[in-house]
Amino acid sequence: MRFFSDNTASICPEILAAVAAANHGLAVGYGDDPWTQRLDEVLGAFFGTEVRAFAVATGTAANSLALATLSPPYGAIYCLTEAHIACDECGAPGFFSAGAQLELMEGEHGKLSAAALAATLDAHPVSVHTVQPAAVSISQATELGTAYRPAEVTALCEVAHTRGLHVHMDGARFANALIYLGCHPGDVTWRAGVDVISFGATKNGALAAEAVVFFNRGLVRDFELRRKRAGHLLSKSRFVSAQLLAYVESGVWRRNAGHANAMARRIGEAAGPRLLHPVEANEVFVALGAAGKASLRAAGFEFYDWGAPASGAARLVAAWDQDERHVEALCAALTAL
Amino acid sequence: MRFFSDNTASICPEILAAVAAANHGLAVGYGDDPWTQRLDEVLGAFFGTEVRAFAVATGTAANSLALATLSPPYGAIYCLTEAHIACDECGAPGFFSAGAQLELMEGEHGKLSAAALAATLDAHPVSVHTVQPAAVSISQATELGTAYRPAEVTALCEVAHTRGLHVHMDGARFANALIYLGCHPGDVTWRAGVDVISFGATKNGALAAEAVVFFNRGLVRDFELRRKRAGHLLSKSRFVSAQLLAYVESGVWRRNAGHANAMARRIGEAAGPRLLHPVEANEVFVALGAAGKASLRAAGFEFYDWGAPASGAARLVAAWDQDERHVEALCAALTAL
Amino acid sequence: MRFFSDNTASICPEILAAVAAANHGLAVGYGDDPWTQRLDEVLGAFFGTEVRAFAVATGTAANSLALATLSPPYGAIYCLTEAHIACDECGAPGFFSAGAQLELMEGEHGKLSAAALAATLDAHPVSVHTVQPAAVSISQATELGTAYRPAEVTALCEVAHTRGLHVHMDGARFANALIYLGCHPGDVTWRAGVDVISFGATKNGALAAEAVVFFNRGLVRDFELRRKRAGHLLSKSRFVSAQLLAYVESGVWRRNAGHANAMARRIGEAAGPRLLHPVEANEVFVALGAAGKASLRAAGFEFYDWGAPASGAARLVAAWDQDERHVEALCAALTAL
Amino acid sequence: MRFFSDNTASICPEILAAVAAANHGLAVGYGDDPWTQRLDEVLGAFFGTEVRAFAVATGTAANSLALATLSPPYGAIYCLTEAHIACDECGAPGFFSAGAQLELMEGEHGKLSAAALAATLDAHPVSVHTVQPAAVSISQATELGTAYRPAEVTALCEVAHTRGLHVHMDGARFANALIYLGCHPGDVTWRAGVDVISFGATKNGALAAEAVVFFNRGLVRDFELRRKRAGHLLSKSRFVSAQLLAYVESGVWRRNAGHANAMARRIGEAAGPRLLHPVEANEVFVALGAAGKASLRAAGFEFYDWGAPASGAARLVAAWDQDERHVEALCAALTAL
Repeated sequence: MRFFSDNTASICPEILAAVAAANHGLAVGYGDDPWTQRLDEVLGAFFGTEVRAFAVATGTAANSLALATLSPPYGAIYCLTEAHIACDECGAPGFFSAGAQLELMEGEHGKLSAAALAATLDAHPVSVHTVQPAAVSISQATELGTAYRPAEVTALCEVAHTRGLHVHMDGARFANALIYLGCHPGDVTWRAGVDVISFGATKNGALAAEAVVFFNRGLVRDFELRRKRAGHLLSKSRFVSAQLLAYVESGVWRRNAGHANAMARRIGEAAGPRLLHPVEANEVFVALGAAGKASLRAAGFEFYDWGAPASGAARLVAAWDQDERHVEALCAALTAL
Repeated sequence: MRFFSDNTASICPEILAAVAAANHGLAVGYGDDPWTQRLDEVLGAFFGTEVRAFAVATGTAANSLALATLSPPYGAIYCLTEAHIACDECGAPGFFSAGAQLELMEGEHGKLSAAALAATLDAHPVSVHTVQPAAVSISQATELGTAYRPAEVTALCEVAHTRGLHVHMDGARFANALIYLGCHPGDVTWRAGVDVISFGATKNGALAAEAVVFFNRGLVRDFELRRKRAGHLLSKSRFVSAQLLAYVESGVWRRNAGHANAMARRIGEAAGPRLLHPVEANEVFVALGAAGKASLRAAGFEFYDWGAPASGAARLVAAWDQDERHVEALCAALTAL
Repeated sequence: MRFFSDNTASICPEILAAVAAANHGLAVGYGDDPWTQRLDEVLGAFFGTEVRAFAVATGTAANSLALATLSPPYGAIYCLTEAHIACDECGAPGFFSAGAQLELMEGEHGKLSAAALAATLDAHPVSVHTVQPAAVSISQATELGTAYRPAEVTALCEVAHTRGLHVHMDGARFANALIYLGCHPGDVTWRAGVDVISFGATKNGALAAEAVVFFNRGLVRDFELRRKRAGHLLSKSRFVSAQLLAYVESGVWRRNAGHANAMARRIGEAAGPRLLHPVEANEVFVALGAAGKASLRAAGFEFYDWGAPASGAARLVAAWDQDERHVEALCAALTAL
Repeated sequence: MRFFSDNTASICPEILAAVAAANHGLAVGYGDDPWTQRLDEVLGAFFGTEVRAFAVATGTAANSLALATLSPPYGAIYCLTEAHIACDECGAPGFFSAGAQLELMEGEHGKLSAAALAATLDAHPVSVHTVQPAAVSISQATELGTAYRPAEVTALCEVAHTRGLHVHMDGARFANALIYLGCHPGDVTWRAGVDVISFGATKNGALAAEAVVFFNRGLVRDFELRRKRAGHLLSKSRFVSAQLLAYVESGVWRRNAGHANAMARRIGEAAGPRLLHPVEANEVFVALGAAGKASLRAAGFEFYDWGAPASGAARLVAAWDQDERHVEALCAALTAL
């Protein structure tokens, strides 16, 4: 019974069917196909504004290509210590940007606060000797399973923009946040001031498909060249674009994230006082202790430690196709601890 | 009737079926799945030796990651002026290697000769002031639709190895070369001295799958970290690995390349004296002249100019799923010119 | 009366004389001159072991070239939050290494502790998803004007080496630390386990000269190429090498640092309870408060705030040629506060 | 008797005196000193227009920092096969720009022709798959000892600018070209359309000083940050700036280059029909043959082969302080061959 990560999930039927449906005849490669050419329109409709959207196959590529577009090599990118870009991408932002430096900040429940950002930026010396503040990157849903409210994003973006920084959103689990918030996709992105989002579909049912969506279209300038140069422009682009179109147009983003969130909520409720962060998406962080973790693992539950093994904390992730019976079993086991 | 490129092709049924077959249940991400864990064994069996094999989604990624493993940032990589890595990857080798310099050489019919390589390397000054010769990269099949013979590869590798350089093979169309040569895959790779090959499947029937296969396993050291860091480690790795397994194990590599080569051969025969290079794979280069090109295009044939439009040369590529009737029509049109 | 930094200082007469003395006739460029060819021997004698030594013109170049030699692009380099490489070099380590990530740690009085380093390294997950621990960089004298004892360096190096990391020492003010410690240069470097030191002379009386000294000569492999490639191999190398030779052989390193340290000590004593860190080199950190800073500045003393202006802290640096009367005036002013 | 290179030369007395004259008291570091603050004005007066000028210590730094400012990482930089940036800087442009690709062209007598550049640029495919034409770099004097006429530079710049490229001039021997041309410095730079020049002083009498002079001041934006980040902002900047001020204001640039050119002209006349290129600066290229080279070397003349040793060609360089008697001896030996 696996609660490792939502990237252990399968492809949802509608998306695999869309790949198969795109598989007829010859299509011009590298994006000049009818599927890819609909991306801007379809994602623009989803977000409720004009966008430029680019498909890539991984979240690391989406995040790092976006950040390399926002930051010069001597730029500073502000994010939380637990950000995926800081912890889980083997230094990819530094690679894609040719050396931009991540400035790690602390937050509560996975959220960077506008006040902390303002204080940090205002204390940054103005000089040729330091890296130059260039961008802020936040995750939505956050790395700790919570969701920024529209007002929180708005406040962050205002702090950033008034100081000349751009804002990137790592939306690997954006659908999960939307389900919880119940708001329009635009409310926590462009209306709040986000310049570009890595809009993930892979974790939520795609084979391998992420869209980099630019609301600030003036920034697109060099993105396409960076993507090609990094080997992230797929030759048979139709098959990644078809996944994204199906993900958005068929509404599976909503159904899949809805199931994952519901499963996580039940786990969170079963965890009771052991819960470390509010459950607002599909991840649950629980203080189990060494004995608790051992007990669950002995009962067949698979999951990762969170932080150092000695901390006693664990992360439990519900996938879009998480078996409800496994969740029930987990909840029972948690309650019994 | 499209003869643009083999990347306009569809996914062959066996490979799409393999993706669907892998789509059940949860599988651990990032390569710790049963499909990915068979890659070394299955590709080792194909090549007839022990290998380390890594899946990526694009040929540019395969080539550049391999070259970044072979060359330091101050390295020189020798290749032909028409090499894909030089012309069609937006400078990707320079990006992945942090600045290695391509040294462009001339060849006949798409082949780098051992003698030319030796002469160039031996004339390279030994000094801290120049880039340092590090690697040679050749394409098999070549960019001009020909195939290196085993002895040619052996001679090149000997020149390279005796001077301390490693050898990379861009095998985006490796299956097509094998079909023509009729030799064992090992004969033009590791037995001839090749250190690492980008073994392509995408053009020949996969959705998006290329294997970087290391024969020189001592070189693998940092490849895995570079791949992750570049966003080329897919989270749902099973789906790219399943494509590669099906490609090799089912034998579709042979059937697909066989069809494409046969179609190209017929086009080449119809081209007669207009043929610019021997047809030894699935690409045909033809001197059509402006009038010839216009005439074919008016008749509904789509293809790219080769070189400057004014040169009158054209490239005609046969895909694995190229419609035989379109080929017949093209042959008739060529004959009629 | 300037207490900004020791880089405001002039060139000491012996070093300028050495430049003039080297200025006769033609000398082969790029290091094949008699001065440069004595560097290994003279610096080896200074440190009491065989070394490979390379001259460069700036401390940022020395540090970053050394670190790029120690760390792959996907490496992590551990240092303190206040390290010069983290705060004052505009991201140079990330540039020279093609993206290595600085991991910032906290220390007391400018020192990284072996225990903190061990804890951090042992908590670092072993995975392809994270940057890979590669090197530790410490400053001697520290950025807060203190000096690591030999046993402290030994303990740090042991933690690093047993975990496969190399150790770099930023010795921009190494002479100042030596004067305070009264130990042999080898005691806090190679005997303690340091692999490479940026041995600064500029702040302590040179025109522009720093030596990168490798005790671990196996690491030299690509340093020379990186230096050339970065534009840090001077064509008229004799003039930078001559500075370093004079600095070491004439003993001015000792006299100059001795004066600077003595001046700083007097300032520190005058600061009394306002002193923030022990004065063990030529920098003094003082809690002055807004009023105190304003009062000193009104009296003609020039110095930088330390940290945010609101913090009330100031840094006072004594140069090798600091006018003793200015120091006396400053001491009087501090006492009067 | 050394004719290796003009970088074997000494420091001319006026420049060393200027360094000594700047050596009094404390001066604020990193460029905020009175010498550095006069650079724009003094170099602007020299070139006859408003400029932004930045001092660095090496020509490789000057060239590569300038080019990194002109070209994105995915840019193409056009230059001749024998360009210093292509042959003698260990790939520095690729390092500083994070991967820009040099596009090597052929020229006559060291000159890139406007027609060849136009043809090459116009044949460059417009596509995301290729590097993007960004800059042209020419050397003045050229690498073969000739000098571009103002009209030649104007024609090149027009070709470049109308196609959106910037133009960089490697002026390591700019003074030598000016002496030959007898024109105003502005005539072959900004009036002809050059955007930025690496204006060398080191070869022509400085200790280590080159100015990067921007005529197109809109490009300066990120140069300062790149310089700092690359370790090329000297802390005691006054001493490099003082060299440049003395070089220009005292007129030694003219006297020194005049002597070197005169010496080279005499060598060229003695070489007679063996001369390979017109002598328009201070370098002489001569077809000596193996016997001729051996004979000269046996007579005590030191010089480098030009190209492969077997080619029989040699390069003879006259420095600003070249001993006239050595030149007379060389001329006699050449005549006697």
